[in-house]
Amino acid sequence: MEEDKYLLPLYNRLNVAFVKGKKSILYDENGKDYIDFASGVGVNSLGYANKKIVKTIKKQAKRVLHTSNIYHIKPQEKCAKKIVELSNYDMQCFFCNSGSEANESAIKLARKYGNISFDKPKYKIITIKNSFHGRTIATLKATAQEDKHKFFGPYPDGFVYAEDINQAISLIDDSTVAVMLELIQGEGGIFMQDISQIKKLEKTLKEKKLLLIVDEIQTGVYRSGNFLISQYFEIKPDIVTLAKGLATGIPIGVMMTSKKNIFTFGDHGSTFGGNHLSTTVSCKVLNILEEYSNSGILQENIKFFDSYLLYFMNKYPNLFKQKNGHGFMQGLVLKDDTKLNELINSSLKNGLLILKSGKNIIRFLPPLNITKKEIIKGFKRFENSIIETLK
Amino acid sequence: MEEDKYLLPLYNRLNVAFVKGKKSILYDENGKDYIDFASGVGVNSLGYANKKIVKTIKKQAKRVLHTSNIYHIKPQEKCAKKIVELSNYDMQCFFCNSGSEANESAIKLARKYGNISFDKPKYKIITIKNSFHGRTIATLKATAQEDKHKFFGPYPDGFVYAEDINQAISLIDDSTVAVMLELIQGEGGIFMQDISQIKKLEKTLKEKKLLLIVDEIQTGVYRSGNFLISQYFEIKPDIVTLAKGLATGIPIGVMMTSKKNIFTFGDHGSTFGGNHLSTTVSCKVLNILEEYSNSGILQENIKFFDSYLLYFMNKYPNLFKQKNGHGFMQGLVLKDDTKLNELINSSLKNGLLILKSGKNIIRFLPPLNITKKEIIKGFKRFENSIIETLK
Ligand SMILES: Cc1ncc(COP(=O)(O)O)c(C=O)c1O
Ligand SMILES: Cc1ncc(COP(=O)(O)O)c(C=O)c1O
Repeated sequence: MEEDKYLLPLYNRLNVAFVKGKKSILYDENGKDYIDFASGVGVNSLGYANKKIVKTIKKQAKRVLHTSNIYHIKPQEKCAKKIVELSNYDMQCFFCNSGSEANESAIKLARKYGNISFDKPKYKIITIKNSFHGRTIATLKATAQEDKHKFFGPYPDGFVYAEDINQAISLIDDSTVAVMLELIQGEGGIFMQDISQIKKLEKTLKEKKLLLIVDEIQTGVYRSGNFLISQYFEIKPDIVTLAKGLATGIPIGVMMTSKKNIFTFGDHGSTFGGNHLSTTVSCKVLNILEEYSNSGILQENIKFFDSYLLYFMNKYPNLFKQKNGHGFMQGLVLKDDTKLNELINSSLKNGLLILKSGKNIIRFLPPLNITKKEIIKGFKRFENSIIETLK
Repeated sequence: MEEDKYLLPLYNRLNVAFVKGKKSILYDENGKDYIDFASGVGVNSLGYANKKIVKTIKKQAKRVLHTSNIYHIKPQEKCAKKIVELSNYDMQCFFCNSGSEANESAIKLARKYGNISFDKPKYKIITIKNSFHGRTIATLKATAQEDKHKFFGPYPDGFVYAEDINQAISLIDDSTVAVMLELIQGEGGIFMQDISQIKKLEKTLKEKKLLLIVDEIQTGVYRSGNFLISQYFEIKPDIVTLAKGLATGIPIGVMMTSKKNIFTFGDHGSTFGGNHLSTTVSCKVLNILEEYSNSGILQENIKFFDSYLLYFMNKYPNLFKQKNGHGFMQGLVLKDDTKLNELINSSLKNGLLILKSGKNIIRFLPPLNITKKEIIKGFKRFENSIIETLK
């Protein structure tokens, strides 16, 4: 595409451009429709052109999009209240603009906590193999995938990688201040941690007054069926980070924490973070999703979606070897890596958007309000794509 | 305020909350109006409730807010083209969500360039005293204000601080890959660099094949009168970063560079960065501002605004000792630091929003399309505030 010459070649883009959407369906430039099982990698939590969201955006745009954080911002206060209430944790929020920024905020908070709370300052943060925590220099280093670290050093010291939760526990030493992890690894294979291991980790950290940081940037905002997957694990993290689905497509991130007295004036901040537009829309998204979750339809549709994945697992044992994930964050593990791009491209051709995760996993992250009808239609296209891929 | 209990206490907020705006005027919860000489710290480039922007946002919200960068995004391509054309530099863009993210992108690019382009890898980046480059761990370390660095270490190595441009030149060594700077320091006192010194720096860097990174997050997008203040300086940076005014209140950042072949697939990325909403709005903002600038009114109003500042300088020599800045980025230096908060608070009371910069400087960053009428009204309120402050 001609205009591509003005963009740095950072993405390996599929050969399609969308111009509009409606519910969980996107349309390309030729009017072809695509059932969306990807939601912009977990962002479009309410799909496209949701009437209530369009109305909220329009109303807010007519009033005010942004004022600085040197003034009070009522929608930011409201949105923080909503997030804290939905979490059921005794926490406070900081607003920023992305997942990477939310994790930067978490790392800064943990380090200040480690700096001021112990006789001997603590600074090490343990992260888990195959994690993904962001693209800034510190969050990239927090990402325990060393092949991604070439070229961009020197990195900040103090990130320690564990193979798994048990090793994370054993790696805790005098200088450790926190363990940071995804309860389901989004980029790292839709791999879900074991609840009892996580509880053991939580207990160990609590005893030592160290912090548990849960990166819910992909799992959060009802993606797992619960508002936070931490709730499903029945744990109490010290820090939770959110982004992606919070405002169904408007850039926003949140770092929330029970450690309310660590940061003081000037320790951190953001120009855009928490502005009227992003927090007003987020508050609306959260209200809609809360109601939807309470109605039981979210859980019902998650089960409906899941039954298809089980069906494919059983019907195509030569193609799939395992089903990973939870809620509306699911993965089908392929036996043969080379089929990954084939299946994604064939789905695209058949009008279905799916994602990859890790080296051999098909990832499903549909809009949370996807309908049964859209699910049926999408999986019909998926089966056609499977058949073509197996030919 | 009750809901404040859900927000981390990171900002020292003035006691006001705005509910709506119109052109360059904001209204608080009681309907009181405020002339805005601050524009959300340079963000609201077109003021509030601009009809064309409201229409653009509404139209785009009805179509699609966001798709992933794994697909082509037409408005992103268009916006990149517009930015590159306005800059007149042979560059390519990467889109992210904030100033900090834009500078992280610049630092990563410079480091990869230094890593792969020389026999002995280079990684050091020289920054200038009192600079401000962001709030992530690496951009905070790039910020040459060591009092801000307490608590959040360990930091990445490789940032070197210079007192001024001449020292920056003399600090260049075998490991230096870039110098990064603001041509007018926004947070550091509206301090403008000397053109001939900057040209000397540019020449030195070019000769050594090192990079000049200009942080135009506050100076860019016509804030200085030109699209980029680099154009006014008649230099050709290797990397330019932008954010704030790009989309008049929607979170967005850009890193643009003439080094097109350094980053490859997967080196960097962003979930939200460059999505349909932010880039569609940005493109509209840039078209409006280009036309406005071409009409001559922008330059005319900058002069009009400036004449007031000179008037106050001359009329109140006991209060002000100097005028700093350029274009619609101006500062009045106070003789007495203690008057800074007094003057800001008294202005707030009188319905005028102004900012601080450094320890003793009143900063003016009005919306770029502020009218003469609004300027007159604002400075009337400013003079009343001066008189009260001097009492
Ligand atoms: C678990 C997790 N953390 C952090 C990030 C980084 O978020 P962003 O791309 O918004 O910076 C992502 C993005 O995919 C993620 O999935
Ligand atoms: C020159 C400069 N660089 C970087 C930043 C950081 O931008 P942000 O707050 O959007 O991360 C700012 C913000 O004030 C700035 O003025």
